Amino acid sequence: MFPFKTMLNLERNSKTPLFLQIANGLIENIRTGVIGEGRKLLGTRAMSVVLEVHRQTVVAAYDELLAQGWIETRRSSGTFVRRKLLQFSPIALNKDALSSAPKIETGFALRHAQHLALPLLKGSTALSFDDGFPDTRLMPSDVLARAFREVLKKGYQKNLLFYGETKGELSLRLELVRFLNETRGLNITTDNIMLTRGSIMGIYLTTQVLVEAGDNVAVSTLGYGSGNLVYENKGANLILIRTDEYGLDVEHLAEICREKPLRMVYVTPHHHYPTTVTMPVARRLQLLKLAQEYGFAVLEDDYDYDFHYASSPILPLASVDTQGFVVYVGSVCKSVSPALRIGYVVAPAQLIEEMGQVRRIIDRQGDNLTEAAFALMIREGDFKRHLKKAQRIYHKRRDLFCELISTTPLSAVLEFKKPAGGMAVWAQFDPQFPIEKLSERAEKKGLKIANGKAHGVNAVRLGFASSNETELELGVNILKTCF
Amino acid sequence: MFPFKTMLNLERNSKTPLFLQIANGLIENIRTGVIGEGRKLLGTRAMSVVLEVHRQTVVAAYDELLAQGWIETRRSSGTFVRRKLLQFSPIALNKDALSSAPKIETGFALRHAQHLALPLLKGSTALSFDDGFPDTRLMPSDVLARAFREVLKKGYQKNLLFYGETKGELSLRLELVRFLNETRGLNITTDNIMLTRGSIMGIYLTTQVLVEAGDNVAVSTLGYGSGNLVYENKGANLILIRTDEYGLDVEHLAEICREKPLRMVYVTPHHHYPTTVTMPVARRLQLLKLAQEYGFAVLEDDYDYDFHYASSPILPLASVDTQGFVVYVGSVCKSVSPALRIGYVVAPAQLIEEMGQVRRIIDRQGDNLTEAAFALMIREGDFKRHLKKAQRIYHKRRDLFCELISTTPLSAVLEFKKPAGGMAVWAQFDPQFPIEKLSERAEKKGLKIANGKAHGVNAVRLGFASSNETELELGVNILKTCF
Repeated sequence: MFPFKTMLNLERNSKTPLFLQIANGLIENIRTGVIGEGRKLLGTRAMSVVLEVHRQTVVAAYDELLAQGWIETRRSSGTFVRRKLLQFSPIALNKDALSSAPKIETGFALRHAQHLALPLLKGSTALSFDDGFPDTRLMPSDVLARAFREVLKKGYQKNLLFYGETKGELSLRLELVRFLNETRGLNITTDNIMLTRGSIMGIYLTTQVLVEAGDNVAVSTLGYGSGNLVYENKGANLILIRTDEYGLDVEHLAEICREKPLRMVYVTPHHHYPTTVTMPVARRLQLLKLAQEYGFAVLEDDYDYDFHYASSPILPLASVDTQGFVVYVGSVCKSVSPALRIGYVVAPAQLIEEMGQVRRIIDRQGDNLTEAAFALMIREGDFKRHLKKAQRIYHKRRDLFCELISTTPLSAVLEFKKPAGGMAVWAQFDPQFPIEKLSERAEKKGLKIANGKAHGVNAVRLGFASSNETELELGVNILKTCF
Repeated sequence: MFPFKTMLNLERNSKTPLFLQIANGLIENIRTGVIGEGRKLLGTRAMSVVLEVHRQTVVAAYDELLAQGWIETRRSSGTFVRRKLLQFSPIALNKDALSSAPKIETGFALRHAQHLALPLLKGSTALSFDDGFPDTRLMPSDVLARAFREVLKKGYQKNLLFYGETKGELSLRLELVRFLNETRGLNITTDNIMLTRGSIMGIYLTTQVLVEAGDNVAVSTLGYGSGNLVYENKGANLILIRTDEYGLDVEHLAEICREKPLRMVYVTPHHHYPTTVTMPVARRLQLLKLAQEYGFAVLEDDYDYDFHYASSPILPLASVDTQGFVVYVGSVCKSVSPALRIGYVVAPAQLIEEMGQVRRIIDRQGDNLTEAAFALMIREGDFKRHLKKAQRIYHKRRDLFCELISTTPLSAVLEFKKPAGGMAVWAQFDPQFPIEKLSERAEKKGLKIANGKAHGVNAVRLGFASSNETELELGVNILKTCF
């Protein structure tokens, strides 16, 4: 028999009750294999004598072991450690050697129904003409940190530390409603808005409630790849619509409408992604008319409305949609920082309700705290101040960048139209020009640019917003030496 | 003709170029209807004379209007404001009367394929015996605010302000790997973990990559409703497995396995939801053996592992799964605050990769900043200190609460087993006892409890963790006067 008294080493003065000390001690010895599988334990009476405790204390300890399944009682023959128990000890308790864990494949079969792989654009502190990301050095970090602390301080009283609404924190919905009504000519209430995490979640939720497998979803031939993945993932057929110098070709869309039913059309009218052009008013009106005539939804993605440099920007489709055909998606990821995962969907209240139901099973809700902190930043005017500042700076950077890339030898191979807004130039290279090589060479010299494979044409987006003027000059100088 | 000079009111010293001032001024007048649809504008030469500017300035302004679609040029007859243009002005620019926006229904048809409505449990500062939520007053808010500020300060340099990894911020994955290996006996690396937003997103992502429409997913008859919505939403058939005093009845599961193929089994072995019981070791081993034999995935949801009061907790299934059958889901929502939307999925690397691809089209990534801030809290020991403190406090509250509800008149109608861990008691009432009325009466007196409709049996979860000792006594006293 085992030296239980020594093994268990009970402490009479401990806060842990004796019965628990006994149970824990036995478990430890069983788990480590000291008391082997199938071994018989002392009876409760004998054990109580050995341990010098009350018999009821041992009974309570054995009850605990029994409940947890470490031991079993066989009628009239006693109490035993369960067989096959040690299979249940962890594989190895290796605290720090993180790389040493065994490579385990899944036991069950995997199916690869969907291919969602597509290059991910990240952005970084490295010198780069990226996809059109903001300069996060302009982010009012101090203000955000203060707002976050402020919100946390009142978090309990304001019910911000609990589960909240799937539609998002009310204070931010309210501030965004005001902001959007004022800047975009929308006319919405807090029932028409749901906070999301970036535009992509707005696209995802819209697709979940509107699109079913087999539905036709129309997108631009030159369009937003991640969006397309969302529709395809839901089982939709992608219908490709021609793209020209004014964005999605609505004449072509009209032809398609006569041929087959469409469930949804995805557009980026303000600055077409990736080509940056603005869809003219006449074409917008025609698009809305088609939606009304054929009953499809228009998913308007207005990812960088806040940055427009030429004249007044045209108001979004959503501002004139009196009949509920437009779902409007936006985000502050491009306005402030991709790390501030706050976006929104604007739609008829009924649709927002349905999105809330879907949201609930995805991640239940947004971040109350971050949302409330950002609401504070809007209310205090910090967001608008930031936008004004960034708009001024990006405007200058656009002008400088366009000037820089208009000079030889770049101008000989690269054609572009100065974008009216946004954060990138759509650079079209001569059909024979090897963008991939340019990209490789530039990267070796310290400048990242896309390799021209993202959009199926010999063109890349060159983001100018995230680089300051020195960096823009440095970057273009590198480019000039790369071919 | 219009008094253009007065209407446009050009400022020679403004930073805005003259051509833009002209374009903006004309747009404003067209938009507000002052210059009507179809009206002819002055030719560029005449306009330049009227405005006293260079003709090229007017040409540039008209080009802008043309590009934006406000005007059109008819060969040899001049420049006109486009017809039907005013339809595109916003419905009404109403900045503050948020409630006055017109109720718009969707224009396109809605389909209601799924019913995802289920009562949402929120939690609040009000006196309540909730579903088993943490006391967010214990949350180390100052520490979190400091960590957040710290992270923001170094945000740019540390690449935290950009788009990041779909799997989540590496520093937190690393800290959680260490924490889980140490506390749960797991043996994983950062390739095996994906950060999510609460357990629910872990369940959602697992379902997206593993389950297809028509698959069988086994769950407990008494189980987690939100999880069931996820499987049903994906088109799975729910197979209900009996639940007994040790959780999911694995014997019954074995019977089902012989009858039909299962794709996945959802379990909460540590503290069964909603009944709080712990699944014994023998049953766990049998479950794993079935998974290996029949090739199904085990989705182990360990939502409140950190709070266990009796003896050592049994290690999770995931700690002994050498063959890749278990997907392990957890979260800090129950450990700290539901507002801290941080959870995780642990699985073979290959599966985590696939989840990352799906994640990318949902919300792309978590909150870099919050994740990095929480990593800091783990690294500095703040998280463990919080857990230790909360564990001690909840332990006391459990004991007090169980004592309080063991007294008359409650004890006459209510049966329960003191839970070995977690944050709620599973209170089973006499079959005829009207829980709904009890709940209504209690609410009138200021105490919220569930109405007994959530689980299809005459029982409710009574959360004790979120109320302090005074509140527990107050609440139970209210309960006693309600029937």
